[in-house]
Amino acid sequence: MGMNLDPTLDMTLIKETSLPKEAVWRALTEPELLKQWFCPKPWTVAECDLELWPGGRFYTVMQSPEGDQFPGESCVLEVMENTRLVWTTDFLPGFRPKISEPESFPFTAIIQLDSIEGGTRYTATLLHADAAGREKHAAMGFDTGWGAAFDQLVALMTVAE
Amino acid sequence: MGMNLDPTLDMTLIKETSLPKEAVWRALTEPELLKQWFCPKPWTVAECDLELWPGGRFYTVMQSPEGDQFPGESCVLEVMENTRLVWTTDFLPGFRPKISEPESFPFTAIIQLDSIEGGTRYTATLLHADAAGREKHAAMGFDTGWGAAFDQLVALMTVAE
Repeated sequence: MGMNLDPTLDMTLIKETSLPKEAVWRALTEPELLKQWFCPKPWTVAECDLELWPGGRFYTVMQSPEGDQFPGESCVLEVMENTRLVWTTDFLPGFRPKISEPESFPFTAIIQLDSIEGGTRYTATLLHADAAGREKHAAMGFDTGWGAAFDQLVALMTVAE
Repeated sequence: MGMNLDPTLDMTLIKETSLPKEAVWRALTEPELLKQWFCPKPWTVAECDLELWPGGRFYTVMQSPEGDQFPGESCVLEVMENTRLVWTTDFLPGFRPKISEPESFPFTAIIQLDSIEGGTRYTATLLHADAAGREKHAAMGFDTGWGAAFDQLVALMTVAE
């Protein structure tokens, strides 16, 4: 797929780690691992269900420090083992278009893993429908949040290796 | 993919033809063929561009009998040669979520081709976000329109065979 990135609509986070691609992939695709890093602490992921095929379910329940739960049903779009995972909050599972909540900002997340000398480059690209959606996501702290989450992934999988 | 159909949200059209699956597939995926059948006459398709991979472009310009043109940028989701084509009006190419026009009804179209004795069964399933979207699509004449278009496909490819 050729990506048509638009800096007014999209956000990208690039991180490097000494972990091999396979370890990052496991953390992305095994629910019991994903639950341990996907939300920056003190938020947590209380539940996770992943169906790793186009149209499959990408389900997480985010939990606030106070214990409030926020379930999210998203849809997997592309799965290339150890290389690329794409999902969207704009569909329910099975490619069903979703009615957006008024304050939400639907996005598609493209995670790309590339081998680099001594490890892996992780590139998270977030595609939004409009600049307002990008702004809302940025205001929620995309860079800090996704960055902190990735650091949790590295810590988790470094222990696991 | 397991389909989670919901009769309050979805519509299905099933047609059978003596054409082989390969001929139906060509008509679906070759722009110069698609232009000749995809719109029920007297409407026509003035332009068509297809990128047959997940995230690829599904572009048509519908033209009214008066010559008014209605361009539509959609996105391909799944391609299984001679078997299955899925696209959605809810994305721009590259999996980018799309802001829906107020009166529009985003949908995902799943075309399935199955071999049957003496030919092919064509199943078009249209997934909508809500009942209102389904109703709008039905009121535009989904059954009649998609049915007439398929009959045009059969006539076209019967000559071509």
